Amino acid sequence: KLDGAKLLTQLRELGEIGLDQELGGRTRIALTDDEKAGRDLVCRWMRELDLEVRIDRIGNIFGILRSPSDDGSQAPLMLGSHIDTVTNAGALDGCYGVLAGLAVIRAFRAARLIPTRSLCIAAFTNEEGVRYQPDMMGSLVHAGGLTLEAALASIGTDASRLGEELARIGYAGDLEPGSIVPHEYLELHIEQGPILAAENTLIGVVENLQGISWQQITIQGSANHAGTTPTRLRHDAGWVASAVVHHLREIAEDSGGSTLATVGCMRFEPNVINVIPRKATFTVDLRDPDEGRLQAAEQRLADFLVRTAEAEGVGIHSEQLARFEPVTFDAQLADEIETSASRLGLTHRRITSGAGHDAQMIARIAPAAMIFVPSQDGISHNPREHTDDDQLIKGAEVLQDVVLQRLDV
Amino acid sequence: KLDGAKLLTQLRELGEIGLDQELGGRTRIALTDDEKAGRDLVCRWMRELDLEVRIDRIGNIFGILRSPSDDGSQAPLMLGSHIDTVTNAGALDGCYGVLAGLAVIRAFRAARLIPTRSLCIAAFTNEEGVRYQPDMMGSLVHAGGLTLEAALASIGTDASRLGEELARIGYAGDLEPGSIVPHEYLELHIEQGPILAAENTLIGVVENLQGISWQQITIQGSANHAGTTPTRLRHDAGWVASAVVHHLREIAEDSGGSTLATVGCMRFEPNVINVIPRKATFTVDLRDPDEGRLQAAEQRLADFLVRTAEAEGVGIHSEQLARFEPVTFDAQLADEIETSASRLGLTHRRITSGAGHDAQMIARIAPAAMIFVPSQDGISHNPREHTDDDQLIKGAEVLQDVVLQRLDV
Ligand SMILES: NC(=O)NCCC(=O)O
Ligand SMILES: NC(=O)NCCC(=O)O
Repeated sequence: KLDGAKLLTQLRELGEIGLDQELGGRTRIALTDDEKAGRDLVCRWMRELDLEVRIDRIGNIFGILRSPSDDGSQAPLMLGSHIDTVTNAGALDGCYGVLAGLAVIRAFRAARLIPTRSLCIAAFTNEEGVRYQPDMMGSLVHAGGLTLEAALASIGTDASRLGEELARIGYAGDLEPGSIVPHEYLELHIEQGPILAAENTLIGVVENLQGISWQQITIQGSANHAGTTPTRLRHDAGWVASAVVHHLREIAEDSGGSTLATVGCMRFEPNVINVIPRKATFTVDLRDPDEGRLQAAEQRLADFLVRTAEAEGVGIHSEQLARFEPVTFDAQLADEIETSASRLGLTHRRITSGAGHDAQMIARIAPAAMIFVPSQDGISHNPREHTDDDQLIKGAEVLQDVVLQRLDV
Repeated sequence: KLDGAKLLTQLRELGEIGLDQELGGRTRIALTDDEKAGRDLVCRWMRELDLEVRIDRIGNIFGILRSPSDDGSQAPLMLGSHIDTVTNAGALDGCYGVLAGLAVIRAFRAARLIPTRSLCIAAFTNEEGVRYQPDMMGSLVHAGGLTLEAALASIGTDASRLGEELARIGYAGDLEPGSIVPHEYLELHIEQGPILAAENTLIGVVENLQGISWQQITIQGSANHAGTTPTRLRHDAGWVASAVVHHLREIAEDSGGSTLATVGCMRFEPNVINVIPRKATFTVDLRDPDEGRLQAAEQRLADFLVRTAEAEGVGIHSEQLARFEPVTFDAQLADEIETSASRLGLTHRRITSGAGHDAQMIARIAPAAMIFVPSQDGISHNPREHTDDDQLIKGAEVLQDVVLQRLDV
């Protein structure tokens, strides 16, 4: 029997770390002091459950419940997600999957169940990718998709170096990344989108996850006087950046809903009211479940950029910050999730993940799948992110049921 | 005989204060430490010329060469401009007019000429309006168009209070603003636009100055996840802001060149790559020499904002930061400038000022006019702002000639 109340209490407690009373959300950007406080709390909770806590060299946290049959070489069943957040975030994104994993362990402890296979709860480093790109970095390094050296050398949006920040907060562990290859991986998460809530369905059986393309684009124009420079003589970096934002909306709309395009970051220089911007820097987040369509959107953006920059007489520079192809999750695990949801009498449907998740990286090295619960009004990355308490508990019960099936308990 | 070499030396020396070696420009934003250093230097030069230096309560600096016939009640002939700069500016904007005034005084001293009317060189506070709005603030207060109290209460883009910064740098003087009403006012300035240079004409006789409308617009949207939120469910503050920038270009183009529109400042919040911006804040600089057309542009912007905000489901808030109607300069003074240019054998033409200038404020209380010299390639508010040395000297000679005529020397 899963202790739902305890799960909700821990979600609330972790959600208070980094809370901004005024804005209402919490900010625990990867490897900041507030995120360290969140890590400390989760490690304490792992130790309270008598788990063996291991930290690897990229800062991924693993809490292991060793099976008696495990001499240390056994591939564990891994349940995980992350506890870093975006700026002014909700309390559920990531934390739910980690703390539900602890809830499953707690139920094992309470029932004095001895697992036939080791269980490992993972909290991966820098899933959100706000400060250091790419996102899902800890799980990507774990899966061998990015070298440890490259990850540690990442320069943040605040010009910090990831390796230094990791050491500073005391989470540069000694475990070699990728040492713990899971037998199977399960990630429970809020949907972060509107589909389950709109359809009044409780469980999303995640079949696949869309492709993600992140770029940072810099426009190099020329500063000049706002009051004296004729429009046709301008090299307005800010205007070109804005035209791209405008065009990206068209790309999204022309796709009939399959492509999503977002410009989340924007900066003008010198950022002075009566000076034509000499420089504009912005990010582009493009997504599509279909790799071909994602590439087409990238191409349309590139063509528009070249055309517009030429017309305005400005320079362009694009840097790829992240690029992940669409991922298909393990079909057998998805079936298992569906079976569990049915057994528990819960409404369910197959679903595509719009967000990136650690599961997509672990899927490179082990069978992986995800379970979604509804996000009220489809709101996430916002303090108003919300899932009803009983939905959160039901989701964790599905996770527990799948674990019991996979461990043959 | 005007000492041109000394004028050029002083321009260079003042231009070194606040210089950024890397970017190549100087930044002496009003009431910062660097601007204080600029003020100190100009005051020292005024004292070296034996001028009576007076500072008023808004920080305007006046250097007075008293005529023997002046018992203190005589209205002086005033020559002025400003020494504050935008971010990463050229060395000429504003400084040229102030230092050319000192050059004219220097010529008087050298020739032991006793003026029949007092001469006053003015350096007005915060002409650029980068940190505190509106621009031309010191001359506006001097002309009675803004109360001293309102000006001192201005909150800067860095959240500082103008009155406190003025006191901090030691330039909160004791002279009551507006005490020194000029008999006439002359301002020598670089054109900052491309017309004189393109036509190979040396002197611009400024007839009028276009209207200026500055707004700060805030879009209040809703943060959500970049990967999961369908386009039609977005309340994307950044997209609305960008659509406005895009539309402003259309307004400018539709005007056939008479309306100028610039978005110099732009900020997204939370400014995170995978979060739809919940808030966007930007400035709009609209200008037109015709008040009716300027109002039409403001109206088109307002209509577009309401329409777009409604479609996207976001809130809008607009604040007027500055609003000045077009100004016509004194016809007799303009004729006098034209006569002087002809007498000195210099090419000249009538011209409209695209930039705002202190002269437009002083025109409210006294006959005022301006003299322009060419800006190479029409570049200003940029380190590449340039006027040839001999053009700078010729411009100052025209100023001196007009002064001699007005004083009947
Ligand atoms: N789950 C989640 O919000 N991940 C962040 C990566 C993304 O932007 O999709
Ligand atoms: N001369 C000048 O650049 N003034 C600043 C005010 C404006 O933006 O026109």
